[in-house]
Amino acid sequence: MSAQLPGGFLSAGLHCGIKSNKEKNDLSLFVSEVPAVVAGVFTQNKVCGAPVVVSRERVTQSAARGVVINSGNANACTGSRGLEDAQWMTAQVASQLNCEPQQVLVCSTGIIGHFLPKPVIEKGVPQVVAQLASTEAALEQAARGMMTTDTFPKLLSRQIEIGGKQVTVTGVAKGAAMIAPNMATMLAVIMTDLTLNEQETDMMLRHAVDRSFNCISVDGHTSTSDTVLLFANGKSGATIVTEDEQDLFQLTLNEVARELSTAIIRDAEGADHFVTVDVTGLRTRDEAFLIAKEISESALVKTAIAGADPNWGRIVSAAGYAKVDFDEKSVSLFLNGTKIYEAGMPVEYDESALSNEIRNHRDVHIELQMNLGDEHVRFWTSDLTQEYVRLNSEYTT
Amino acid sequence: MSAQLPGGFLSAGLHCGIKSNKEKNDLSLFVSEVPAVVAGVFTQNKVCGAPVVVSRERVTQSAARGVVINSGNANACTGSRGLEDAQWMTAQVASQLNCEPQQVLVCSTGIIGHFLPKPVIEKGVPQVVAQLASTEAALEQAARGMMTTDTFPKLLSRQIEIGGKQVTVTGVAKGAAMIAPNMATMLAVIMTDLTLNEQETDMMLRHAVDRSFNCISVDGHTSTSDTVLLFANGKSGATIVTEDEQDLFQLTLNEVARELSTAIIRDAEGADHFVTVDVTGLRTRDEAFLIAKEISESALVKTAIAGADPNWGRIVSAAGYAKVDFDEKSVSLFLNGTKIYEAGMPVEYDESALSNEIRNHRDVHIELQMNLGDEHVRFWTSDLTQEYVRLNSEYTT
Repeated sequence: MSAQLPGGFLSAGLHCGIKSNKEKNDLSLFVSEVPAVVAGVFTQNKVCGAPVVVSRERVTQSAARGVVINSGNANACTGSRGLEDAQWMTAQVASQLNCEPQQVLVCSTGIIGHFLPKPVIEKGVPQVVAQLASTEAALEQAARGMMTTDTFPKLLSRQIEIGGKQVTVTGVAKGAAMIAPNMATMLAVIMTDLTLNEQETDMMLRHAVDRSFNCISVDGHTSTSDTVLLFANGKSGATIVTEDEQDLFQLTLNEVARELSTAIIRDAEGADHFVTVDVTGLRTRDEAFLIAKEISESALVKTAIAGADPNWGRIVSAAGYAKVDFDEKSVSLFLNGTKIYEAGMPVEYDESALSNEIRNHRDVHIELQMNLGDEHVRFWTSDLTQEYVRLNSEYTT
Repeated sequence: MSAQLPGGFLSAGLHCGIKSNKEKNDLSLFVSEVPAVVAGVFTQNKVCGAPVVVSRERVTQSAARGVVINSGNANACTGSRGLEDAQWMTAQVASQLNCEPQQVLVCSTGIIGHFLPKPVIEKGVPQVVAQLASTEAALEQAARGMMTTDTFPKLLSRQIEIGGKQVTVTGVAKGAAMIAPNMATMLAVIMTDLTLNEQETDMMLRHAVDRSFNCISVDGHTSTSDTVLLFANGKSGATIVTEDEQDLFQLTLNEVARELSTAIIRDAEGADHFVTVDVTGLRTRDEAFLIAKEISESALVKTAIAGADPNWGRIVSAAGYAKVDFDEKSVSLFLNGTKIYEAGMPVEYDESALSNEIRNHRDVHIELQMNLGDEHVRFWTSDLTQEYVRLNSEYTT
């Protein structure tokens, strides 16, 4: 994955000392040279990190300057002191950028229940500000500064033309799901140099997140710190005038969000398979979503995929407990394009050929078709392997 | 576990040929000598086995004679032919008992998507009827005829005195959760010789199931065939007159249901720990239930227990996404009696001592306390081990 920053955005990332391994970045900064509109989507968990509380109060606004992110410490379950620390961190950055703390957002990811190591952050902030640059290398360093158990940085760009001007949409993300000991978080920052107002930014981000970050699951465990931010600084000079332009930008934003979120699933630790779940033919998108989520989070479906088993019974029964009203006669199921269940009944097919195909390919496609309507949802998940369990149980606090 | 049948009940179990292993029973029968009241609680899954459809239509009634159960084949996802087969099976038994098919219920558990082997069942039914007896040995044979991946039969009795007469409550159950390849089902049959009317039987069974079978989870995967039946035949001559008598019977029924359901968790394949989850201090029982269920079904909580890790972050964050409104300052957490989280903040404790205690004991107790009300729920679950994943993935259809 490679990417470049949109016009007027700078970034940097470095090791300041939160992580013990000096070769791993733990502090990142994304900055707009001019005040930008920012919107955010945050975890629904009632137990949320202090940075979520602070950043949630600071969206949606039109004078944002950027976001500071640390990894190695989630600053979650840290009470009122954690809240003060998160506010303090934005103030440190604001004083370097000559802006108000309110204009700076904050994200933290890493171990839960420990206070931020303020001295190393205090020393690191001026250094990371000094390294701000618009280069691809600076963007990759920033992407690395967000990583916890990720095995690769996740970043990409898309260019489109709006009103004769080139517009860039660039996103970075971290997350191998909440799978590592005490680690908790999916974070993403998306930036564009398009001109957007606050309402558009918020609305278009929510639309994209509903079709990307809200459609992935490794273990169904909602983290305490999930955050997706969209900054729009208008530097390209382009503005949305026509509906076609709006559609083009929304689709591009959706694509960036989808690529980032599926990169998280591809990086899910311990996983051998990348599974795309399509649920089609429902009366509402919500119904399709509920079914896709239950299939994607069923331990029995996920172990079946790990074992290369085209076990339609587990998939169909997971759909059955999704609290959506249907008759099993409405259901057909395809696995990697092979029909294995039709109108509520098993179908003859070559089981060993299909099993071999699953075993020999990383990508698996589950398609559950109903005939109740036209709504559909695509979801992404990983398989459940012994390695996942080993990674998540061989640790002692 | 040992048990005896209540007055007027007979049972039998044998191998008729559904399972390939001739040493394993696969056909069971529970019969009341006189017409009995029967109530049932069934799976909520939209995809349910044919026997569920048939038995659901036949409760609540007061002229039931019993239930025929086979293992090795769930008769689920078998369409209209499956439905005919389930009805046929009850007719086979009814003709032997000289009663109407409507008076006989049916349960099936085993592989999904295969038609019942009618010839072996046709031959087996007269044999199992011929073996009906009131002995403990006959009850154990019947309990064994329901087993799929269970490693031990699950049966127990309790005796109480009502109106100077001895009343027996006896239950049998099967299930190591929906954990084995294509196996799907938790089944339980509870019998009593107390006199109960239809409304009482239904109400008291639901009350007991809400506090037992609905509070266990191995993998959160609702099966297609779950069934719990309560038969009451009045043979003891005892009737409930006072409220105290009603309470006594309800508590006894609850205890039998709880012992059977926790036996299922103790038998969960691949599990190293038996986990009791108490959630207290909520405004409603539903709120406590939602939180207890999320904690019990979190892969991260369950792998932490497998790894003997007192990982409060995973437990508290699972509570946080249960869709119950609370502030983390309301939450305190005890693990095996040790306070590890208080009023939204971590607490100092001896981590290695607590970890060793979890590692060295099969039973683990999680207690999440809130201060929002007086309602509470107890839930039971198993840990998530590499062995669970191996069992569920090393199989190919």
